[in-house]
Amino acid sequence: MTITLYSLCGADVARPFSPHCWKVVMALHHKGLAFEERPLAFTVVPTVENGASKTVPVLRDGQELISDSFRIAQYLEEAYADAPSLFGGQGGIAASRLVEGYSQHVVHGAITRIALIDIHDMLDPVDQAYFRKSREERLGRSFEEMAAGRDAAIAALPAALQPLRHTLSFHPFVGGATPLFGDYILFGALQWLRITTGSIHLPPDDPVSRWFDRCLDLYQGVARAVA
Amino acid sequence: MTITLYSLCGADVARPFSPHCWKVVMALHHKGLAFEERPLAFTVVPTVENGASKTVPVLRDGQELISDSFRIAQYLEEAYADAPSLFGGQGGIAASRLVEGYSQHVVHGAITRIALIDIHDMLDPVDQAYFRKSREERLGRSFEEMAAGRDAAIAALPAALQPLRHTLSFHPFVGGATPLFGDYILFGALQWLRITTGSIHLPPDDPVSRWFDRCLDLYQGVARAVA
Repeated sequence: MTITLYSLCGADVARPFSPHCWKVVMALHHKGLAFEERPLAFTVVPTVENGASKTVPVLRDGQELISDSFRIAQYLEEAYADAPSLFGGQGGIAASRLVEGYSQHVVHGAITRIALIDIHDMLDPVDQAYFRKSREERLGRSFEEMAAGRDAAIAALPAALQPLRHTLSFHPFVGGATPLFGDYILFGALQWLRITTGSIHLPPDDPVSRWFDRCLDLYQGVARAVA
Repeated sequence: MTITLYSLCGADVARPFSPHCWKVVMALHHKGLAFEERPLAFTVVPTVENGASKTVPVLRDGQELISDSFRIAQYLEEAYADAPSLFGGQGGIAASRLVEGYSQHVVHGAITRIALIDIHDMLDPVDQAYFRKSREERLGRSFEEMAAGRDAAIAALPAALQPLRHTLSFHPFVGGATPLFGDYILFGALQWLRITTGSIHLPPDDPVSRWFDRCLDLYQGVARAVA
């Protein structure tokens, strides 16, 4: 039985960049599961698995079809309970939603302000049109306005990561001594920044940079191999 | 054997307001432990227990003397392992540091900008002098500048709470179906705002307001009784 992960890419299928899909890639490796990743362009996503979801990640595991990165992680935790835990108990599952909230509502905003034009430029023309329209509506400003604020956004990134830096002053991973899904949530955000812009825009001696390097080293460097 | 919690107050000893001390009050009730709370003024704190700590909370439990709210919670979890868990497993302990980081580096900043003058006005004159000097140095601006930004700070509070609101869209407490220490971390912050300013400055139908009310109802309304 093959596990299939539908993820997101631009014109280059070898460089999937979605933060939410990277969470699932790392979670599948964490569980030691073999899988096939199928990166798709933005405008192809709604056609996958007979229109099962408007967004990726989507995971097909035999008869099971699951969308949303957190629900996929919870599915993997239950379906592969004998493999290493992604959450370290019920309290870890619940608190990981706060990690997700912090990532999506603090970190993602900071990254979007840096990477938006880079993401656009990675896409095929048909996806560029979709991306510009949907993002300008969501953000309430034009791409040109976002581009003008890019340097300020890079300067603001370290402050947005202060809660993560605080956590890493106590243990090497968000999950403690070893990584858990909370790490993959925040890793996915910075991996998205790295793949789309070529850098995480932090000093190499920042504790967040060192943690990010530790995550890139996991699972035979699977995440480092995409650049 | 009596447990003693040293906490923080202003001129009115009946209104302890420290966010970190409220975390411990809630954690002690969570564990079902009887304790005596001794609220102290800012300038008295460094003299307690022979100068054991420059800050409160400080917990005395028989031969044990522990400072720092998170370390106290970890102590209670180990020393009273048969009582209800504060973390729901090892993953919960680790992820709670991210909750702490979010609370201290996102939520506390938003609250400080609202409550600073109110806190000052609650203190005895000797503590007012200490508080103004130490906070103006830490914040890099005068109390008068902070006061001028109070309305803007209140307007900015809902956005700072978006990660918590996200979490509460999945379960009634940060800890899941029932509260854990992650709830008390964020409850402590808003209880600090409530006691010092008389309000949490959020609409009553905000999911964060409803969650805060649920926390005020815990343990026979012990936190609601201080206002």
